[in-house]
Formats: sequence, structure tokens, C-alpha cells
Amino acid sequence: MGIGGGANESHIPMIGIFDSGIGGLTTVRAIMQKLPGYDILYYGDTARMPYGSKSPETVRQYALENTRFLVERGARIIVIACNSAASTAMDAVTQTFDLPVFEVVNPAVEAAIAAPLPPRIGVIGTRATIASGVYEARIKALQPNATVHSVPCPLLVPLVEEGWLDTPETTRIVKKYLHPLKTKQIRTLILGCTHYPILKELIQKKIGKSVRIIDSGSCVADTVVRYLAQNPQMDARLEKNGEHRFFVSDITAQFQRSARTMLQGPIHLTHVRM
Amino acid sequence: MGIGGGANESHIPMIGIFDSGIGGLTTVRAIMQKLPGYDILYYGDTARMPYGSKSPETVRQYALENTRFLVERGARIIVIACNSAASTAMDAVTQTFDLPVFEVVNPAVEAAIAAPLPPRIGVIGTRATIASGVYEARIKALQPNATVHSVPCPLLVPLVEEGWLDTPETTRIVKKYLHPLKTKQIRTLILGCTHYPILKELIQKKIGKSVRIIDSGSCVADTVVRYLAQNPQMDARLEKNGEHRFFVSDITAQFQRSARTMLQGPIHLTHVRM
Repeated sequence: MGIGGGANESHIPMIGIFDSGIGGLTTVRAIMQKLPGYDILYYGDTARMPYGSKSPETVRQYALENTRFLVERGARIIVIACNSAASTAMDAVTQTFDLPVFEVVNPAVEAAIAAPLPPRIGVIGTRATIASGVYEARIKALQPNATVHSVPCPLLVPLVEEGWLDTPETTRIVKKYLHPLKTKQIRTLILGCTHYPILKELIQKKIGKSVRIIDSGSCVADTVVRYLAQNPQMDARLEKNGEHRFFVSDITAQFQRSARTMLQGPIHLTHVRM
Repeated sequence: MGIGGGANESHIPMIGIFDSGIGGLTTVRAIMQKLPGYDILYYGDTARMPYGSKSPETVRQYALENTRFLVERGARIIVIACNSAASTAMDAVTQTFDLPVFEVVNPAVEAAIAAPLPPRIGVIGTRATIASGVYEARIKALQPNATVHSVPCPLLVPLVEEGWLDTPETTRIVKKYLHPLKTKQIRTLILGCTHYPILKELIQKKIGKSVRIIDSGSCVADTVVRYLAQNPQMDARLEKNGEHRFFVSDITAQFQRSARTMLQGPIHLTHVRM
């Protein structure tokens, strides 16, 4: 009972990406860099953000609604750029929609375990992502010898959205959050939240330059590139006019500022009422 | 075309309070203290929180839906305990529902201008509340000689919700936010966000003990007490079994912990799907 395929052929077939808000634009940026020219449709559910603090049932419902929005406008590949949705709603989305669906957790996990054995991996994310245990479970499933240390960093999203990227307070809070990971001498650190790439330099400085940082947006972009190389029919169908359309369920001046920060460039957001 | 009155007489008539999330429980606590025994119905829209970052149109729509939820379950008086909703949705709620509606902004403004002349008033709140200019406009309307200095403090809500009530980081951020108000030598400080009473001691310490702090939840509770004294017929209708029911549109362990922090006591949250 999948939805998709031929239902909306009048729309231009393209890559659809959704997130709870604007953080997923770091993933869009990675995909734009690795697949230049591909049309992209983005939906940020800013009217109901953030998802990190909400229950799995609520996040699943939102993820299905967001996917439907993208599919109805032509998306033929779905990228779930929200860690909370990726860890709780992937199955619901793949079971409901008959399309290839990618999400930000597994690619980061696969990149992390490709490390000197035995891997000692740190994971940082929102409280919900860390509490779900999704990174630890998936790492252990693929590499049972891995040691995983997870730390919730719930203040980093509001700090990034405030634009406090290099204030002493942010430096201090990042240092405090990373302290338990430093004492565990991790070798790899997964940024398990779409906002964190914006703080990557600061995080690298505080965790130490010998730790390899895995950016989940960049990893899922690599996965989509590989998928298209292996599926030339799908690749051929996707429109490549370099059009990028950004929809949000709510709009404010602050969202527009943050969107620019996340995409690291100019961006026009279109408000749609769900 | 008001809604209310006799529509749902099968429900117990009581005081209804809503907020974007759990912060409004500080207002519930103030009302419980000043009107002990009165039945209270609370609705926290945790599935769509926070409102502070969202647009006025979206906040108005949410406020109408929340009020309808309370009215359908017996609320005969509405208290809007959310500053974002109070400043943008009060007119929409009063025009749609035929009930007495109170909100947290005006009572705080009235308390603030009852100060030695000319009043020098500071206001702190979320970015949306401060950007709306609602406190400044209402203060000036009542007391044109007042000087008002407003400072957005968007990180205080996530800090309180994290339970970082007396960490060095919170102390430092509070001090940083209040610094411009200290240099203006304000005499009165309005806490224009329901979460801030939880940080009242720290705020008092950092702004200085000579500054009078106005807690908007406590002020709206005083207003409801006065209204009931002046409207004995309404007072007589309200049920006084000391029953307090707390509904939320989403529930997590973190919401439950925060609810306990806000109410400063045990609390049972009931999840309802809107």
C-alpha cells in the first residue's frame, strides 16, 4: 500500500529532504556540494520544531506528514535529515511510502566503525537521540567490539540558533559536554545532530585534533551519491536544473537568519501552512 | 458568535489555563496558592512547543485550539499563561470565545508601573516576546513617562528545562543577559516568561537586591482573585473540590521532570492527542 511512484508525474522528480526545522540545511549543503545541479526540495517543520524533546509517537506522525508533503511535490528520493525522526520514524516512512529513503544515522555509524580496531566511539546529540540509544545499538550490531560513549548536549541547538557560535559561554558549555568523552579517550566522535556541524571547529578544538569527527549530513550525502551511481535509472529520472526550493511550516526573521547560518549562504524560505 | 456559556454544562465549571508547554505551571502554582481548593484544568501544548520562536499567525491558531480544548472540558475562565500567546492571541481568543479571559502581560505591566515616578522598568523574555514590543507598548500606554529597557534572553528556557538552575554556565549567562539592564539602573524588572520565576533568586542576585522583580504568573493570579471577588455569581459557579488536572499534547520523561520543577511539587500529566 505504498504511496509514490506514478502518482504525481506532473511534478519534477527530485531529491526531497526534511527536518524538524532548519538544522537539516547542513545536510542540504552537503548534498548540494556532492551532487551539484540536482534539484532539491526541502521541508523544515519549523511550526512544530524541535522534535528532540518530543515522544517517538509524535515524531513518527510528524515524519509521515512531512514525507507526504515532499512526495506530493515531486520527491522521488527521501532524505530524513533529522536525527530524532531518523531514529524513530525510518520504519514508518519506508513502510508507508514506496520510495528509497535515506536517513542520517546509519551512514554515520558505518563511517564511524571504519576505524582502527577496537573502535572507541563518542556520540553527541539531543537528549531524545541519545536516550533512544539508536547510535549505540546500530554500532554494536555492526561492530560488537566497539566501545560507545554517548553524551546528550541539548543546549547546543539553542546556542547555534542564537548565533552564539564562538562566545565564551558556548566554548565553556562545549568543553563541559565533551569532558566525559575526553576522559574516555575516544578516537571517533559522531555529531548526532544536524546543528552540530556549525560548531565543528570548536568541537574539534575541545575534543582534541587526534579525534576523527563524523558529520552525519556529509555521510548521508555520500550514501545518496553511491545509491545514484548504482541506480542509473533513478539517477536519469531526477531533474538537474540546480533548483533548490526551501519550504517551512512557519517563518520568522530568526528562522531566516538561522537558515543562512546553516546553509552558509543566501537562502529564500517559502512559508506553507500544513 | 462566541463559543462557551451553556454549551458543555455536563462538565464541571472550572478555571482553565494553557501554555505552550510546561512553563505555565509556575502560573498554576501561583493560582493554587492564592485560590486554594479551586478546580483547575491545565493544557500544555508540548507537542508544538515552544511558541516563542514561532510567528504570530501560528501562535494565534494554536491559542484558539488550546482554548477550545479547555472550554470543551468545562473551563469557564481562561488564563493564557504563555507570554507569546498573551501578546499576540489575546484579541483572537476573546473575540472567539464568550468567556472571561486573562493573560500574563497586563497584570505584570500594572504591577510594574505602580512604582516611584518616573518608573525605570526592565523587561526580560523570549526573543518573540521582546521583539513584539508588547510590554513596552502597554507600559507606555499607561505611563508615558516610564523608561523601558527590554532584553531577550532566549537561552534561559532551555537552561531551566535542562535543570541547570545553579550551574556556573547559567549564572554566567544570566549575568551577561542582565548586564545592559544593570547599566541602565532599572528599579523594576518584569520576568516576561513563565520559566523565569524558577531562576528568580539568581536573577535577583545578579540584578541587585534594590530592584523589584515582577513575576507575571503571580500578578495574573492576583487579577483572577480580584475578578472573582467582584463577580460572586461566577465565583459561586466554579467547582472547588481542589481537583487539578494537567493535560499535555505530548509526554516524555523530560517533560515530567520539568513539570515537577515548574510546579515545585508532584504532578501527574495526562497525554491527549489533539
